[in-house]
Amino acid sequence: MGKVGITETILRDAHQSLIATRMRTEEMLPIVEQLDNIGYHSLEAWGGATFDACIRFLNEDPWDRLRKIKEKATKTPLQMLLRGQNLLGYRHYADDVVEYFVQKAIANGMDIIRIFDAMNDPRNLETAIKACIKEGGHAQACMSYTTSPFHSLELFAKDAKVLEDMGAHSICIKDMAGLLKPYDAYDLIKAIKETVKIPVQLHTHYTSGVASMTYIKAIEAGVDVVDTALSPMSGGTSQPATEPLVASLQGTKYDTGMDLVKLSEIADYMRPLRDKWIETGLLDTKMLGVDANALIYQVPGGMLSNLVSQLKQSNALDKYDEVLKEVPRVREDFGFPPLVTPSSQIVGTQAVFNVLMGERYKMVPKESKGVVKGEYGKTPAPISAELTKKILGDEEPITCRPADLIAPELHTIRAKIEEYIIQDEDVLTYALLPQVAEKFFKMRKDGTLNQVEETPAPKAAPAKTEVAEEDDDELVAVL
Amino acid sequence: MGKVGITETILRDAHQSLIATRMRTEEMLPIVEQLDNIGYHSLEAWGGATFDACIRFLNEDPWDRLRKIKEKATKTPLQMLLRGQNLLGYRHYADDVVEYFVQKAIANGMDIIRIFDAMNDPRNLETAIKACIKEGGHAQACMSYTTSPFHSLELFAKDAKVLEDMGAHSICIKDMAGLLKPYDAYDLIKAIKETVKIPVQLHTHYTSGVASMTYIKAIEAGVDVVDTALSPMSGGTSQPATEPLVASLQGTKYDTGMDLVKLSEIADYMRPLRDKWIETGLLDTKMLGVDANALIYQVPGGMLSNLVSQLKQSNALDKYDEVLKEVPRVREDFGFPPLVTPSSQIVGTQAVFNVLMGERYKMVPKESKGVVKGEYGKTPAPISAELTKKILGDEEPITCRPADLIAPELHTIRAKIEEYIIQDEDVLTYALLPQVAEKFFKMRKDGTLNQVEETPAPKAAPAKTEVAEEDDDELVAVL
Ligand SMILES: [Co+2]
Ligand SMILES: [Co+2]
Repeated sequence: MGKVGITETILRDAHQSLIATRMRTEEMLPIVEQLDNIGYHSLEAWGGATFDACIRFLNEDPWDRLRKIKEKATKTPLQMLLRGQNLLGYRHYADDVVEYFVQKAIANGMDIIRIFDAMNDPRNLETAIKACIKEGGHAQACMSYTTSPFHSLELFAKDAKVLEDMGAHSICIKDMAGLLKPYDAYDLIKAIKETVKIPVQLHTHYTSGVASMTYIKAIEAGVDVVDTALSPMSGGTSQPATEPLVASLQGTKYDTGMDLVKLSEIADYMRPLRDKWIETGLLDTKMLGVDANALIYQVPGGMLSNLVSQLKQSNALDKYDEVLKEVPRVREDFGFPPLVTPSSQIVGTQAVFNVLMGERYKMVPKESKGVVKGEYGKTPAPISAELTKKILGDEEPITCRPADLIAPELHTIRAKIEEYIIQDEDVLTYALLPQVAEKFFKMRKDGTLNQVEETPAPKAAPAKTEVAEEDDDELVAVL
Repeated sequence: MGKVGITETILRDAHQSLIATRMRTEEMLPIVEQLDNIGYHSLEAWGGATFDACIRFLNEDPWDRLRKIKEKATKTPLQMLLRGQNLLGYRHYADDVVEYFVQKAIANGMDIIRIFDAMNDPRNLETAIKACIKEGGHAQACMSYTTSPFHSLELFAKDAKVLEDMGAHSICIKDMAGLLKPYDAYDLIKAIKETVKIPVQLHTHYTSGVASMTYIKAIEAGVDVVDTALSPMSGGTSQPATEPLVASLQGTKYDTGMDLVKLSEIADYMRPLRDKWIETGLLDTKMLGVDANALIYQVPGGMLSNLVSQLKQSNALDKYDEVLKEVPRVREDFGFPPLVTPSSQIVGTQAVFNVLMGERYKMVPKESKGVVKGEYGKTPAPISAELTKKILGDEEPITCRPADLIAPELHTIRAKIEEYIIQDEDVLTYALLPQVAEKFFKMRKDGTLNQVEETPAPKAAPAKTEVAEEDDDELVAVL
């Protein structure tokens, strides 16, 4: 134990969680040098939904953002969030795309790559971890936090060991819905620290109101690094605030060594931006509150509101309690996946169907079938032979890693947009977001990129249709 | 150690801190029975600035509010905040007024009276404590939390013993500015619990962002009760949220035994009110943020913004750093008073004068003189003979309790408003708020009380002129 490290999320997760990822590069650059001088463990500044948001909403090249931030942050490691074999896109990609993406991220300035998988299937992390190690980056492997009768301290510790053995430089417990309570965090961090030798980091969100208490107990249990956001962009669906944690640890054996006055200068820069975002409606004040329902049902707050709206559409809001009871049963049937995107939607929708149809699994959406078939990877617990038979019929489940079925695709993808390429990275942008990237490239070619209107104020969260594609683990909390 | 008690502040401090004390009785009554069924240690529902706000802004009789709440809260003790010899008004009152007020508060339904004094002078608490004991109430004596080279764990423990010996049934550490950090809270509570036998309660505000962490460590140190507010009215300048703390303690030896589902039903009632207050501007979103500056300077956030505005008025904002350094020196000269209303304003203004005049104590406002003279009571540390001489000249300081100089006044006060009295309590209302009460009584007589317009939306905090009189310890955080 000793000095605790802090990852500042203000350039990535904080604005992704509070203002639908709409912070612009030009709004970031004036404070990057100051952030760089604080002595943070790292600056989370890229990845997650920022890649998509740059291209889709801000007419910005995400690679360009990375290079510009790196130019000003010369001392503090930059960090990004990567969705394992899904990279920053919405499907499993071939290994050659994953390897090339990681190579280019590091070549453009990325230092620490936090890699996670919605199913917690380590095979979905492996290519990215290996690529990161090969390119000289720091590979941080994630476990999505969840609770279930199947999940135990032993299971998390065992999974952490698997990731360490895979070569990960550090482990991250990723609690995207703020479900991890303080004394549970203490036990969890203890169990993992006793099992692995590499550093352990904790990532959570303030959504349910327990996050800063959870950090205190995790720190006492020996966690090495925690994620916070400077106060103007903290709380609510974002991370706990940086300054109060730094102040709380001052003079204790966990002292971060960071300077509160310097932090307050950066907060002074951010506060008018916060005010502006509140005024335009981009920052909905609902995002700033505490939603304790997640603590009652142990499911993300966003999933609960999705259930309500699905039931409303079917004029069946009176079935809400029944659906709430069905959710854990479906989750058990599906092998206790962590409730993050997309599994939270899949489990929720299946629970709604099971209740509304009056018969379980009478109606099975293709995404449910995908889970049972193994298209997303291996579920934490096995799925019973009966349910597999009922849902797949005679179809065989996939037992290999999903990406093993995808042939190398980089060459084909490059061929498709040859005419637009002005930098190597363009092929990756296109691989991840084909339609949006093509539109972006055309505008870039026509010189019309700068004609971007002021941020379209999507009264808080982006519209449903956007979400489907923009989706990210984090957004589930925002939905 | 064991079961932790919770005082719910949603009916008093939460709305005082977030919406300038404007919650109406009719908005409270629909949830009082539900609150009463939770199993709270107590419901803070009266006192502080609510008395003034009822009469001045809401055209409500505060005594009537108390009786109506009591009618629905038959199981849970009601709690109020009382400013010692100042009661709920703005000067020291004669003992007969204090005694009569306490008698009537208890007769109308009050169970626990939390009594504090801005100077932490126990003599200013004594009459109220004794009266509360005599009337069969629970007398909770406060120590305002503050830090200074003079303040130590030993001093707080010693002061707590004085209050216990005075007959107090419990002790409250009152941290109105959110200055108490988690590990300091641990040591403080330990020291006090080792010294007194009566229960110890902790009251703080979320303002600086440390409050929920502070509660966790205070609870581990053995604090008996903490103050929280249900989530829709929590955070920012209010208390930490109730539900996340309850959830965090569930299943531990500190379990509150409270039911999260029942709490969520009350939160469901409050959430639309919060939304309405945000929409009308009564709840300024600035109140919901974290202001970490208090942690840097160990002074309330509101005091810092007051200094800035005073300096702006004098076109001397460039002197801000100098004034910040002068503040602790003035505070030392004045015997290290806790920085609450009115001492925070007095110390701040004197520091500004000292810097702007280029000579210390060249200009001394009458309030500064009052502190040195002893008009507010005994300062924690003695004031030097040199400064006393410099400021008072040949005038003698007051060494007795200030109220010892006030003759019984109840009779005279009653005579003045005989014509309006319809209940015994009216004389107390008039004693505390003469002008406002008279206006209220006239309207009551004319039958025009109900012609109150919708809450005048004072874009967040009330205007300066109102504040001067409405002032309360708590308001300093809001200013
Ligand atoms: Co996150
Ligand atoms: Co208070």
